[in-house]
Amino acid sequence: MKIFSQFNLDRKSKVPFYLQIKNYLQEMILMGSLPEGVRLPPTRKLAAYLKVNRTTVVSAYEELVAEDLVESHVGRGTIVKKRKIFPEVEMPYSPLNWSEFLAFAPPPPDDSVIKDIISYSSQKNFISFGAGVPAPEVFPIKEFQEIIYYLLKTEGDTIFQHFPTEGFLPLRKMLVEWMAEEGKRVSPEEVFIVAGSQQGLYLLAKIFINPGDLIFVENPTYLGALQVFKGFQARIIGIPTDEQGLRIDVLEELISRQIPRFIYVLPSFQNPSGAVLNLERREKLLNLAYKFRVPIIEDDPYSKLYFHQPPPLSLKSLDKYNYVIYLSTFSKILFPGLRIGWLVAPRQIIERLSRTKQFLDLHCNTLGQRAIYEFCDQGLLEKHLQKVRKLYSRKRDIMITALKKHCFPHLVCNSPEGGFNLWCKLVSGFKSRELLREALDEKVVFVNGEAFHPEGKGEEYLRLNFTFQPEELIEEGIKKLGRALNKLIKKSKIERKDEIYLSKPVV
Amino acid sequence: MKIFSQFNLDRKSKVPFYLQIKNYLQEMILMGSLPEGVRLPPTRKLAAYLKVNRTTVVSAYEELVAEDLVESHVGRGTIVKKRKIFPEVEMPYSPLNWSEFLAFAPPPPDDSVIKDIISYSSQKNFISFGAGVPAPEVFPIKEFQEIIYYLLKTEGDTIFQHFPTEGFLPLRKMLVEWMAEEGKRVSPEEVFIVAGSQQGLYLLAKIFINPGDLIFVENPTYLGALQVFKGFQARIIGIPTDEQGLRIDVLEELISRQIPRFIYVLPSFQNPSGAVLNLERREKLLNLAYKFRVPIIEDDPYSKLYFHQPPPLSLKSLDKYNYVIYLSTFSKILFPGLRIGWLVAPRQIIERLSRTKQFLDLHCNTLGQRAIYEFCDQGLLEKHLQKVRKLYSRKRDIMITALKKHCFPHLVCNSPEGGFNLWCKLVSGFKSRELLREALDEKVVFVNGEAFHPEGKGEEYLRLNFTFQPEELIEEGIKKLGRALNKLIKKSKIERKDEIYLSKPVV
Repeated sequence: MKIFSQFNLDRKSKVPFYLQIKNYLQEMILMGSLPEGVRLPPTRKLAAYLKVNRTTVVSAYEELVAEDLVESHVGRGTIVKKRKIFPEVEMPYSPLNWSEFLAFAPPPPDDSVIKDIISYSSQKNFISFGAGVPAPEVFPIKEFQEIIYYLLKTEGDTIFQHFPTEGFLPLRKMLVEWMAEEGKRVSPEEVFIVAGSQQGLYLLAKIFINPGDLIFVENPTYLGALQVFKGFQARIIGIPTDEQGLRIDVLEELISRQIPRFIYVLPSFQNPSGAVLNLERREKLLNLAYKFRVPIIEDDPYSKLYFHQPPPLSLKSLDKYNYVIYLSTFSKILFPGLRIGWLVAPRQIIERLSRTKQFLDLHCNTLGQRAIYEFCDQGLLEKHLQKVRKLYSRKRDIMITALKKHCFPHLVCNSPEGGFNLWCKLVSGFKSRELLREALDEKVVFVNGEAFHPEGKGEEYLRLNFTFQPEELIEEGIKKLGRALNKLIKKSKIERKDEIYLSKPVV
Repeated sequence: MKIFSQFNLDRKSKVPFYLQIKNYLQEMILMGSLPEGVRLPPTRKLAAYLKVNRTTVVSAYEELVAEDLVESHVGRGTIVKKRKIFPEVEMPYSPLNWSEFLAFAPPPPDDSVIKDIISYSSQKNFISFGAGVPAPEVFPIKEFQEIIYYLLKTEGDTIFQHFPTEGFLPLRKMLVEWMAEEGKRVSPEEVFIVAGSQQGLYLLAKIFINPGDLIFVENPTYLGALQVFKGFQARIIGIPTDEQGLRIDVLEELISRQIPRFIYVLPSFQNPSGAVLNLERREKLLNLAYKFRVPIIEDDPYSKLYFHQPPPLSLKSLDKYNYVIYLSTFSKILFPGLRIGWLVAPRQIIERLSRTKQFLDLHCNTLGQRAIYEFCDQGLLEKHLQKVRKLYSRKRDIMITALKKHCFPHLVCNSPEGGFNLWCKLVSGFKSRELLREALDEKVVFVNGEAFHPEGKGEEYLRLNFTFQPEELIEEGIKKLGRALNKLIKKSKIERKDEIYLSKPVV
């Protein structure tokens, strides 16, 4: 029984007693502590010693027999069998150094801003202006609760089976209708469901980018896209923007010198700047694409989230020669958890995307696709949008008012007509990275400007999301941000009052 | 009004009339059919002509004004504006040839067997023994219906928000418990949630495989893994197997000559062969991995789906030096639609996987993770498994009996003790590809053997899934398969009776 002196049954564990006993004996045998030929204690004795039922011990022993670790002989008891493997070796094995085995391809950059933001945003007591997430207080939960309950009742098992890689056909047809409402005719074969626009960007990068390929983006631009493109080792050039979005004149000059693999743009309520590319620039952009034969990837998560009037037609709708791939998502207009977005692209691109996605994850989760389709088909999305447009417009105003009160004149911002974010500038020469450090002490988080710039510029900018926090916390969070800003100013000990008004305040 | 002679309002369309009118006019303007300075028909006249309300036409015109395509002048009406863009060009633009723009990396192979199987399997009147899908008639739909209803009621918005990239923590902790039941201690940081084991394979291939890297697999092996590894341009060597699984003696000989990047194995109820690697071979395999310092990827979708007794401990549980990455999924034990699987791996691998998955799709869908956790936590999975073990064992028997009746002696098969599939052999020199052609005519589908062999051998084998079809259709489908087989035999016109018994029938 000596071998059991180190053993204690864990009576709270979910692991049944017989398995605990078996696992322990197995380990002893495999480790050589119970060598070949040793007789295990008689079941009755061990049961008494461990204060368990005898059948428990019998079961444990039977498991060991089944695994060929011991043998039972009538009259001789249960004997440890000869172990042909795990022989005594001179040089003991050692754990693997896994990093030796990783592929040579450079890993994704380590400064995963999105991940960090998600992590801070989910911490208790933190007021997050970081992640670009919709307002949870108006999530149409009750509607989804009823839709899913109904769907599982009426459609049963079909919802839990495989869906086509390209996505749930009625959902794709519905998205065709959405395009038709903009006057653009596409076929369902040109629509492709992805696991959020993040996956759309990944798939597009995967099929288009060779290492070293040149890509044009807006400067600033969506940080998630920058990270993906960098992960595929693209060279990225940021084209300057102004209040009207992409500077077409600069683009024209640059594109006539070197032609990029594609141009990535967010024409409507751009992330982070909130700018809307006007119709004239949209058409000029298309014409440049046609002239220099460059595809455009149009990322459009926000166009339905306007506050007063919709932005101009999408590039995809205006495109007459099929140069545009359109990308959008339900993460911003509904919620991000279901991971459903979509692409509209030429058929041969969809075909390649589909073959690639099939390797990635076969298809998107079925329940999310099915429920979102139902929600939209019942006309509930339009109602939801009407609600959030008002809410977001109000939240934007609350944030701007609070900024004027607590952060002016050191921090100025724009007033976007849609979307999720304020794009702010520190006017006194401070860096938003420094402000972020102070803000984290105050338990407030935002995204510093460098994250949106391909070459790490934009240090004086920061993005503040105004949709996620409840109205009452927006004021409080900005107050804290103001405190952080004051601390930073005090620390810097440099009086820069004379500089303050050099930059035109936009607030 | 001439310009409207080609125009018809679509009174059934979901697109509002004013938008149809606006879209039409917009197109005419952009195409140049309505050139600069042209006056649009007075709203009252056009309304009468189109038989719509006048406000409809007014709205359409207002949209055009908002988009800067026309301008309204009191007294002069609505005039088409000067178009600075879309100037007359000598060389008209042409559609893009998208294939010029795709990355150089070879696309995934085109013979996407999995996709084809899914496609056939979903066709009406087809009896599919193709896809490896669980039995829909016992999907625990009611349970999920109630769980999701309850979750949305009690946890509200948190379920629709972002989850950490690594997965829902309680789910990861539960999977730690599952490992503990096998006597293996891992921490939640070593567990990672993926969108089905397909995504697990993709992520592993992405972080481990350089083009040209050598990989060892079982021969035959899971076709989805083969496709992914090939997609990453690995060189794949298939190690022979027998009824006990991987031939360790052959592996030892091969591995001492060239060391692979990793060894990929399915030790329990192997796909497609159904073989179970016994404990002795598992330990020898581990020892070879330790000796030659080679990581093992253990794919284990079926170990809980045993019919009478569980297979030996997983390689991961037996592994003492952290050489094994473990991969499994809820797609086989529950259903595939939610796309939730998991990996157990060393922390530094999880960290790399996590950075990679963050680019891929941020995280898995939240509702699936949350609902599956709840289902398992309530003890419902164990009940479900007890039910399906009996059902699958019965279905296997039905299929084997039917095969004996309709296909013997030209087709023989094994009788696996768990999992989803029969692995069958055509003994008369026929190729399963030829049989598949006949079978498709009979509206029966299965997977031909080459798909499971890295070098396209195995032409005489086929895999029959016995879990998906309802019991009554198994007999019917096999009867049809028998008819297909007979047609094939007649067509071949070669009497091969003398060969029939050369191969030992396993049935």
